[in-house]
Amino acid sequence: MKTKAIFYHAGCTVCLAAEQNIASAIDRDRYDLEIVHLGTQKEKIGDAKASGVESVPALVIDNKPFHINFGASLADLG
Amino acid sequence: MKTKAIFYHAGCTVCLAAEQNIASAIDRDRYDLEIVHLGTQKEKIGDAKASGVESVPALVIDNKPFHINFGASLADLG
Repeated sequence: MKTKAIFYHAGCTVCLAAEQNIASAIDRDRYDLEIVHLGTQKEKIGDAKASGVESVPALVIDNKPFHINFGASLADLG
Repeated sequence: MKTKAIFYHAGCTVCLAAEQNIASAIDRDRYDLEIVHLGTQKEKIGDAKASGVESVPALVIDNKPFHINFGASLADLG
């Protein structure tokens, strides 16, 4: 069974760089990767917060949040 | 040819979580991953700084730095 990974972003430049370099480097044979744009999928902001995400870009792996550099605060997206 | 990826850490708790979740998720078929402990390999601090690393844990992919959460500043390791 694959480990769940969710990459949260908001379309910002910092987000795009993280998606192209970090998210794309994930082994898809072992991880089920979902890409969520919180700017357009605002209904997912609650899920992100529940996983401990405070800013984007962030990668949630196995329900643990990892903030990658800093693009925007979740508080500014809601 | 594989893309070069370097995971810089300093043995801290935040570093360990990032190593176990982010670094270990990288597709080793496509990426040549090197793990560097800057606390014990201080001679590599210069390389890390040259790649733009300011804190650990950090992942440098294709020579671009991505800071993951925050464990320690590079300035405190030198």
